[in-house]
Amino acid sequence: MKKMPPVLLHGGDYNPDQWLDHPDILAKDVELMKEANINCVSMGIFAWSALEPEEGHYTFDWLDERINTLYKNGIYTFLATPSAARPAWLDEAYPEAMRVAADGTRNRHGNRHNSCLSSPAYREKVRQIDTQLAKRYGSHPGVILWHISNEFSGECFCPLCVERFRGWLKDRYGSIDKLNHAWWTSFWSHTYTSFDQIEPPYTNGERSVEGLILDWRRFTTWNTTEYLQMEVDTLKQYAPDVPVTTNFHATDSLDYAKLAEPIDVISWDSYPFWHKPDETLPYTAAVTSLMHSRMRGYKAGQSFLLMESAPALVNWQPYNKIRRPGMHRLASLQAVACGSDSVCYFQIRKARGSAEQFHGAVIDHLGTNETRIFREVKELGADLQKLSCLQGSRIHSKAAMLADRQNSWALDLCQGFSRNRNYQETLDRHFDAFTTATGCDLDVISFGEDLSPYSLLILPMCYTLSEEEAQRIREFTEKGDTVFATYALAYVDETLLAHLGGLPGGGLKDVFGIWNEEVDSLYPGETNHTFYQGQEYTIRDFCEVLHLQGAESLCSYEEDYYAGNPVLTKNSFGKGSAWYLAARTDDAFLRKVYSELAAAAGLPVQALPDTVEKHVRTDDSHRYTFYLNFSTESVTVDVPEGTDLLSGNPCGPSAVLPAYGAICIKEDL
Amino acid sequence: MKKMPPVLLHGGDYNPDQWLDHPDILAKDVELMKEANINCVSMGIFAWSALEPEEGHYTFDWLDERINTLYKNGIYTFLATPSAARPAWLDEAYPEAMRVAADGTRNRHGNRHNSCLSSPAYREKVRQIDTQLAKRYGSHPGVILWHISNEFSGECFCPLCVERFRGWLKDRYGSIDKLNHAWWTSFWSHTYTSFDQIEPPYTNGERSVEGLILDWRRFTTWNTTEYLQMEVDTLKQYAPDVPVTTNFHATDSLDYAKLAEPIDVISWDSYPFWHKPDETLPYTAAVTSLMHSRMRGYKAGQSFLLMESAPALVNWQPYNKIRRPGMHRLASLQAVACGSDSVCYFQIRKARGSAEQFHGAVIDHLGTNETRIFREVKELGADLQKLSCLQGSRIHSKAAMLADRQNSWALDLCQGFSRNRNYQETLDRHFDAFTTATGCDLDVISFGEDLSPYSLLILPMCYTLSEEEAQRIREFTEKGDTVFATYALAYVDETLLAHLGGLPGGGLKDVFGIWNEEVDSLYPGETNHTFYQGQEYTIRDFCEVLHLQGAESLCSYEEDYYAGNPVLTKNSFGKGSAWYLAARTDDAFLRKVYSELAAAAGLPVQALPDTVEKHVRTDDSHRYTFYLNFSTESVTVDVPEGTDLLSGNPCGPSAVLPAYGAICIKEDL
Amino acid sequence: MKKMPPVLLHGGDYNPDQWLDHPDILAKDVELMKEANINCVSMGIFAWSALEPEEGHYTFDWLDERINTLYKNGIYTFLATPSAARPAWLDEAYPEAMRVAADGTRNRHGNRHNSCLSSPAYREKVRQIDTQLAKRYGSHPGVILWHISNEFSGECFCPLCVERFRGWLKDRYGSIDKLNHAWWTSFWSHTYTSFDQIEPPYTNGERSVEGLILDWRRFTTWNTTEYLQMEVDTLKQYAPDVPVTTNFHATDSLDYAKLAEPIDVISWDSYPFWHKPDETLPYTAAVTSLMHSRMRGYKAGQSFLLMESAPALVNWQPYNKIRRPGMHRLASLQAVACGSDSVCYFQIRKARGSAEQFHGAVIDHLGTNETRIFREVKELGADLQKLSCLQGSRIHSKAAMLADRQNSWALDLCQGFSRNRNYQETLDRHFDAFTTATGCDLDVISFGEDLSPYSLLILPMCYTLSEEEAQRIREFTEKGDTVFATYALAYVDETLLAHLGGLPGGGLKDVFGIWNEEVDSLYPGETNHTFYQGQEYTIRDFCEVLHLQGAESLCSYEEDYYAGNPVLTKNSFGKGSAWYLAARTDDAFLRKVYSELAAAAGLPVQALPDTVEKHVRTDDSHRYTFYLNFSTESVTVDVPEGTDLLSGNPCGPSAVLPAYGAICIKEDL
Repeated sequence: MKKMPPVLLHGGDYNPDQWLDHPDILAKDVELMKEANINCVSMGIFAWSALEPEEGHYTFDWLDERINTLYKNGIYTFLATPSAARPAWLDEAYPEAMRVAADGTRNRHGNRHNSCLSSPAYREKVRQIDTQLAKRYGSHPGVILWHISNEFSGECFCPLCVERFRGWLKDRYGSIDKLNHAWWTSFWSHTYTSFDQIEPPYTNGERSVEGLILDWRRFTTWNTTEYLQMEVDTLKQYAPDVPVTTNFHATDSLDYAKLAEPIDVISWDSYPFWHKPDETLPYTAAVTSLMHSRMRGYKAGQSFLLMESAPALVNWQPYNKIRRPGMHRLASLQAVACGSDSVCYFQIRKARGSAEQFHGAVIDHLGTNETRIFREVKELGADLQKLSCLQGSRIHSKAAMLADRQNSWALDLCQGFSRNRNYQETLDRHFDAFTTATGCDLDVISFGEDLSPYSLLILPMCYTLSEEEAQRIREFTEKGDTVFATYALAYVDETLLAHLGGLPGGGLKDVFGIWNEEVDSLYPGETNHTFYQGQEYTIRDFCEVLHLQGAESLCSYEEDYYAGNPVLTKNSFGKGSAWYLAARTDDAFLRKVYSELAAAAGLPVQALPDTVEKHVRTDDSHRYTFYLNFSTESVTVDVPEGTDLLSGNPCGPSAVLPAYGAICIKEDL
Repeated sequence: MKKMPPVLLHGGDYNPDQWLDHPDILAKDVELMKEANINCVSMGIFAWSALEPEEGHYTFDWLDERINTLYKNGIYTFLATPSAARPAWLDEAYPEAMRVAADGTRNRHGNRHNSCLSSPAYREKVRQIDTQLAKRYGSHPGVILWHISNEFSGECFCPLCVERFRGWLKDRYGSIDKLNHAWWTSFWSHTYTSFDQIEPPYTNGERSVEGLILDWRRFTTWNTTEYLQMEVDTLKQYAPDVPVTTNFHATDSLDYAKLAEPIDVISWDSYPFWHKPDETLPYTAAVTSLMHSRMRGYKAGQSFLLMESAPALVNWQPYNKIRRPGMHRLASLQAVACGSDSVCYFQIRKARGSAEQFHGAVIDHLGTNETRIFREVKELGADLQKLSCLQGSRIHSKAAMLADRQNSWALDLCQGFSRNRNYQETLDRHFDAFTTATGCDLDVISFGEDLSPYSLLILPMCYTLSEEEAQRIREFTEKGDTVFATYALAYVDETLLAHLGGLPGGGLKDVFGIWNEEVDSLYPGETNHTFYQGQEYTIRDFCEVLHLQGAESLCSYEEDYYAGNPVLTKNSFGKGSAWYLAARTDDAFLRKVYSELAAAAGLPVQALPDTVEKHVRTDDSHRYTFYLNFSTESVTVDVPEGTDLLSGNPCGPSAVLPAYGAICIKEDL
Repeated sequence: MKKMPPVLLHGGDYNPDQWLDHPDILAKDVELMKEANINCVSMGIFAWSALEPEEGHYTFDWLDERINTLYKNGIYTFLATPSAARPAWLDEAYPEAMRVAADGTRNRHGNRHNSCLSSPAYREKVRQIDTQLAKRYGSHPGVILWHISNEFSGECFCPLCVERFRGWLKDRYGSIDKLNHAWWTSFWSHTYTSFDQIEPPYTNGERSVEGLILDWRRFTTWNTTEYLQMEVDTLKQYAPDVPVTTNFHATDSLDYAKLAEPIDVISWDSYPFWHKPDETLPYTAAVTSLMHSRMRGYKAGQSFLLMESAPALVNWQPYNKIRRPGMHRLASLQAVACGSDSVCYFQIRKARGSAEQFHGAVIDHLGTNETRIFREVKELGADLQKLSCLQGSRIHSKAAMLADRQNSWALDLCQGFSRNRNYQETLDRHFDAFTTATGCDLDVISFGEDLSPYSLLILPMCYTLSEEEAQRIREFTEKGDTVFATYALAYVDETLLAHLGGLPGGGLKDVFGIWNEEVDSLYPGETNHTFYQGQEYTIRDFCEVLHLQGAESLCSYEEDYYAGNPVLTKNSFGKGSAWYLAARTDDAFLRKVYSELAAAAGLPVQALPDTVEKHVRTDDSHRYTFYLNFSTESVTVDVPEGTDLLSGNPCGPSAVLPAYGAICIKEDL
C-alpha cells in the first residue's frame, strides 16, 4: 500500500463544486492555500450531484482539473466517496434509499447521513460511482487516501433492515430459545416463538426488553460495518494501493471498534467546546485528549489523522465563542501530541449559503488573507513543517482505561440506581485526574484489546462484563499487574443478564477480595465523605456497601448507616493487586489515588502544573515530548533536555511555557 | 364467599415461570420464603406465555406444582389472570388487540398494560384462559383470591373504541342537542349534527372542547370497568366462592370509584419516594397515608390489601436512595395502621433480566438469606404475626375529605386562573395539616358517598359540583354538621358548564354566606398575607375576592387592592356551619384552622409531635391504636393505656418511640 | 367607501348564537351594553354552524334580529365572515379542507384557524356564505365593517399546497438553476433537477436548506394573502361600500406587511401580560406600544382599530393576574394614544362552556352590572366619548425602526453565533430606550417603506439585507439623514446568501466606514464593558470585532483580546451620518445614545420620567398630546398648555399624573 508522505498533513474539506461558475475564486483558492502552508485537501465529500447530476451521467472534468491543479501546486487530495448525501434524483427513483425512523415513518428527501445502508438499490448506486472514482483516480499521484462517506451514524427501521436484523439474530443465537433466555423474555410474558415476531425497538413498539435494544444497536453497527466493507472492497478492486479511511466523530450511536476493522487509517472530526464558562480550559483539553486517545486506540500501534477541526467558530454550537488568539495553534498541536499525523479543517472556504455558511473556514466570505484566522492557520502550517519528523512516530502507554461502547449502551439502558450515571463524564474525570496526577499518556481501549502492553488497567463503571472479559482481567492481575475498578463493576453480563451469586460478578469477588451487598444512590446535592491520608474528600451519587472478603480497606464512609464501610479497598491477587473504589468521589481523591497507583505500577510519573498537558511520541531513534500550557498565564515546568522543534532552541532542564504555549523537545534514544 | 385467613398476609409477586429450568432455585425459593415468614404469593400475573405458549395449547403443570408445594408449606396463592401482557402469538394473530395511541397510530407488539379492552378477539382469548384457570384452581384450598390483570390504566383510540364511545354518548345524552348544550359546542362553531361526527380527542383532532375530553375519560373508565366485569363474571361462573380483586396504583387515568364496583376487595401497589431531600419524612408519610385512606374509601367499611410494595429500591424512580434500616418496617406497619390486612411485595425473587431486574426483592440475585433486606423482611413477617388479631378490624373516621377523580380531571382541563392549580398537592397539604393537627384519621371519599358517618366534611378546590352534589352538601350542613371549603368551589357543573348567577355556584352562596366576585392568580413567588389570632400567615397562587352576604370574616388580606377583603369566613346555616377559605395559605394556617374545626365538630383531637402519625383500628371488642415515628430521633407521646402488641409490653400513659419506632396498643372496648 | 362614524368605537366580540334559547339573556345583553357605553360589536366570527347548520341551508333570522335590535339601540356591527372555524358537516363532506401538519398527517376535525387555504372545496364554501352575507347585509346601515375570518396563522403541508408552492417557486425563480443558486443547494449535494423534486420542510424532510424554509414561509404568506383577497373580492362584489379588515394578532408565522394589502383598515388583537413580576410595568407598556406602532405601520398614514383586548383576565395566559383597578383604562387609552380609533374586547358576555369560558368579559357569568370589571368598562366608554374628536387623527413620527418579518425569519433560521439572538427582545429594548429617552413616537416599518418622512432610521440586527434595500439606506444617509445600525447588519442577502467581500455587506462598509472582521458570541452570564462619556456600560451576547475604515470610534471594549476595538462608531457619509453599534449593550447605553441621536437628527426631544409614555396625534387643526403614567405612584411631568380632554380642565405647563393616570391635552395648531 502507498505510504503517506513524510510530512504532517495540513489542509481540510474543500468544496470547489460550490464555485464552479467562479473561476476567479477557484484560482484564488490555490493561491491562498499555498500561502497558508496547506498541503492536502479532502474533496468530493458531498459532490454526488456535481459528479453524477443525472443517473448514470458522470461529470468528472471539474474534479480532474482540481486534483491536477492542486497536485501541481504541492497539495495532495483525500478523495471522498460521495455517499454521505444522496442527490434528489436518487431518492426520486429509489425511495427505499431513504431511512425509516423509529416511529416507522419513512424519511422524505433531504438532509444527509441518512441512507438506508441495507438498501440494495442504494448500495448499487454507490458501488457504481465508487467504481468510477476508483478507476479514474486510483493511480493519480495526488490522491493519497480514500475518504469513505462521512461521519457514519444513525439507524434505519425499514422492512429491509428488519429482515436483516432477524437474520443477524438467527446467526447470533441459533435458536429462539437461546434468544429468549438471553433477553429474559419470560419477564412480562415476552417470550417469542419465532424470529419473525421480533421487531426493532420502534417508538410505539417493544421498549421494555433491554437486550433487544442493545442487540439492535449491535446490529446497526454490524450493518454499517458491512456496508463500509462494501465501499472498501469496491475501491480496492481498482485501486488496491490507496489506503482508506472513514472519518469518525463524537457519536455514541455506533461501536467504532467494529467500524475500524475494514479501514486502514483512523481519522476523526474534533469539535471541542473551547472557552466554555462552566469548565476550565485544562479540563476541556483533557476531554479532548481523551477523545484523541480513544481514536488512537481503535488501531493500536498506529498514528491517526485529525480529519476535521474548526479554525474559527463551530456554527452548530449554541454559543460560538470564537477561539482566542493562540488557541487554534495550541489545540492543533495537542492533536499531534496525542498521535495525529495531520491537522485538517472543515472548511477551506466558507460556503456562501445553507446550513454551515457560518462555520469557521480558512478563507472567509471576505475572500482574502487579511483575517486573523487566516494568519493563525498559516503560522500553524509553518509549525507543522518544523514537526515533519514526527510523522509515523507513536505513543507507548503503560496504562489503559477501558471505555467500551457496549458498556456505554448498557449503562444507558440500565433501569435503576441513579439517573446521574454519567458514564462519559466519569471517563472524562478519571482521564483528567490520571493524566494530571501522573503526566503519563493513557490509552483508551475497548473490550478484547491486547492487555500485554500495560501494567495498569483502569475500569471505571464497567457495568457489563462477560465471563470471558472477567477472566482476562483475572489473568492480567494474577500475572503481576495492577487493576483499578470502580463502583458498578460487573453487574451484568454481555446480554445484560444480572450476574448471579453476588457482586462484582463474573468471578471477580475473589480478585478484588470484596462483596458488594447493596447500592445506595444519593439524590443530587446529597453527599457523604471519606478521610484518606489526613484529607477529607466528598462523595456523591453512588455509594456501594461493601464487605471485605480478603481485601484491605484504605478508607471508609464517614456518614449514614454505612459509616465505617470501605470506600477504597486493595487486594493482593496472584502476583498483582486489585483496587476497588466503592463510591463516586471528587476529582482530588482520584488524583491522589492515581498518583499512588501509577507509582505502584511502575509508571514514569511526573506531576504537572494544573494547566499543563504532557505527551510523548517516539520513533525508532527519538523521543518527542510535548508540553502544552492550557492557560492564559505562563508557567514553568521541568522538561527533559533536548531541542525544542518549534522554536529551534535548546531546552531543559526547565522551561517557561507562555500563555497558550507549547514546546516539543526532541531527544535521541 | 370464602373468608380470608385470620392472619395478616405477608408475601408478594412471585414469578417461578422465569426459573422453570432451575429446580434448585425453585426449591430454594420455598425454603427462603418460609424463613422470611411469608404466607402468601401472587402468581401468574405475567405468565400468559408460560400458561399458553401457543394459541389453545395450555401448560398448567408447573403452576399446579407451585401452588401445591407452596400450600403444603403454608403459603397461600393470590392467583392472577394473565391479561396484563399479551403473548407475541396473540398480537400476531389478532392485531386489533394492540391499542391505538392518541395520534391514531396502532401500537406494535411489546410492553404491557396496553390491550384494547374493546377488542372482541382479545376479550375472547382472555375469557378462554380465565375459564381454564377458574375451572382448574377455583376450588384449590391454597387459592384464596383472584388477582385480575394488573394495574389497569390508559386509553385506546381504535375504531372499535370510537364506536363504543359514540354508543356511550348516545346513552348518556339521548340526543345530539343535549350533547351540544352540555359541551357548549356553539362556541367556535363546534356544533355536531350527528353522533357519527364525534371523535375522541386525538392529538391532531378536537382538543378545544373540554366536555368532550372529560367524557372521553369517563368513557375509558366505563369501558375498563365493563371489561373488568367480564373477567369477574368469567371467574365467578366456575369459582363463585373465591373473592376477586384487581390491584390499583397511583394513576390519574381512571376513576377507581367506578372500577371498585365489580370487585370484592380493594388492593393497591404503593411506591412512595421515601427519603426525598426536598420533603420531610413525615410529609412523605402523610402523602402515603392519604393514598392508603383513599384506597380504603373505595369500599367503605372494609379493610384493603397492600398488594405491592418495595422491600428495597424501586428501579423506575430516578434516584434509588435505598430504604434506611428500619424504614421498611415502619412503612409496612403504616399500611396496616391505615387499614391494610396485608404487606406484600414486588417481588419475591429478583428477575435476572429485562426492565425490572434491579427492582428490590426479598431474594436478591445473590440468592441467599445473607442480605440486610432479607433480614428486615423476615423481622417484619414476625411483627405481622403479632398483629394477626387486627385482621378484619376497621377505621371509623368522623371526618372526610372529598377527592373525586372527576374533579381532578376537570381542574386539569380548566383553561384559566393559575397553572399552579396543583390539586393533588393541595389535597396532600390539607390531609397532612388535618392529621397532624388533630391526630384523627381522615377518610378520603368520592362524589356520591354516604355522608352520614361524618360530622366534618372538607372540600379542597371542589371546582366541579353538580346541583345534586351541592344539594347534598347543603343538607349535610343544614342538619347540624360542619363543612369547610376552599377557593375554586363550584365554578362549573358536572358537564363543565359554568354555574350562572355568581360563585360559589350550585346554590351554595347562601350556605356559605358569601359571593366570590373575582379570582386573582399570583405569579410564582408572589405573596399576600393575613393575620389570624395574632399570627401572620402567607398566601400564594389563588386569591378570591369575596363579598360577605351573611358570613362572618375571620381574617382578611393584608395587601393589594383587595386588602381588607375576607380570607376565611364562617357562616351559620341551618343547624350547622359552613367555613370558606378564599386563598391558598401556608400549612401553618391550615393546621390552625383544622384544630379549630375538629374541635368544633366534636372530633377526639390529639395534637401530635410533628413526626408522629396516629391511626386507630377497631373491631367489635377492641381498639388498636398505632403511633408511628417518622423520624431518626426518638420522641415521647401520650398514649392510651394497654398492651403494645409489637413489644408485648404494657404501655401508657406516655411512651417513648425510638427512631423509626412504632407501637400498637390494644385496648378492650 | 363608507366612512367610519365620527366617534371612537367601543365594543367587542359578541356571540348571541350561544344563547339563542335564552331570549331573556339576549334582551339583558342590549340593556347592559347600553349602560356600558358600548357602540359597536363584532358578530358572526364563529357562527358558521349557526348560519349554515347544514350544507346550503341558511338561517339568518337570528342575525337579522340582532343587527336590527342593536342598530336601533345605537350599536354598530362589524360583521364577520365565519371562515375561521368550519362546521363538522363541512369536514365530513370535504376532508381536504383540513390542514396537513408538518409531519405529513392530515388533521382531524376540530379546533379553529386550521383550514387548508388552498382547498378549492373550502374556498367555494366560504365564497358561498360570504356571498349570502354580502347580499343580505351589505347595505344595512348598522353594518360598518367587514371582519374577515379571524387571526390568520399557520401553514398547511397538503398535496394541494405543495403543488401551489412549486408553482410559486417557478414564478419566483424562473429556472431551477436560479433556485439552486439562491438556496446554495450545491452544499451537501442538494441540487434539484426539477421543481417537482421540491417539498416543503416536512419534519421528516428537508430541514437543512434555510432558503427553502424561508421561501416556504413567504409562500404561506402569499397563499394566505391570495385567499384573503378572494374573501375581499367576494364581499366587494355585492357590498363595495363597506370597508374590510381582518384582525391581526401577535404571531410570527405570517408577514403582515403582505396581508395588509387587500384590506382597507388594519385591526388587531392585543393581549399584553400586564403585572408580570419579572418586568416593570413601563417596560410591558413599551412592548405593547411597539406592537401598536407596528400595526399602525402596516397602513402608513392611517389610524387602526383595537379589535380585541381583555377587560379582565386572559384565560390562556399561564398566570391570570387580574388587571388592577385603573389598569384597564390606562391600557385602553394607550391604544388610542398610539393611533387606535377603537377599544374593543373579547368578549361582551362570557361563554358558558368550552375553551374560553373564563376569558374576561364585559358581562360575567353573574349576568349583572355589579362587577368591578363592568364598572371600569362603563367608565372607559365615557372617556372615549370625551375623546371622540380624535377619530381619524394621526401620528407623524420623524423616526422609524425597521422590524421586517423576513428579517425575523432569517435570524430564526440562521445557524451560528449565539442562540441568544432574541430579535424581538432586541426590538423591544431599542423601542423602549428610544421612546423613554426622547419622548418621541417611533414608527415601526418593514422593508420597502417610504423613508422620506424620517430623519432618523434605526436598524437593530438587520441581518438580511438585499442590495436594493442597502442602496435605499445609502441614499437615505447620503441626502442628509441619520442612520443607526447595530451588530448583525447585512450578513446575508434576501435569499440568505452571505454577502461576499466583507461585512457589513450590500456595499454598506463605506456608508458606515467600518469593516467587521469577526463576531464573538459570549456565553450567557459573560460580559464585556465599555466606557462612554464617563460612564461604564455592560455588554453581553454579541461582540463584533470592527476595523475603522473612515469612521470615528466613540467608545471601545474594555476587556478580552479585542479590548480597544470600537463598540460605537460614527461616520459622515454624504450629507448625513451613519452610526454603528458593534455589541449588545445594556439599556442605559441605548438610552444615552438615543438621546444624542434624536437631538442630532433634529427630533423634538422631551426626556420623560421612567414610568411615563408620551404620544402625539394630530389632525388638520389640532394636536392631541397624551401622557400616560404606568405606575402606582403619582408623577409630575412638563406638558404643553391646553385642555385636558379627559378631565375637561385646563392644563400646563406641568401636570401631576396620579397612579395609572392619563391626560390628553388638546392644542390648536
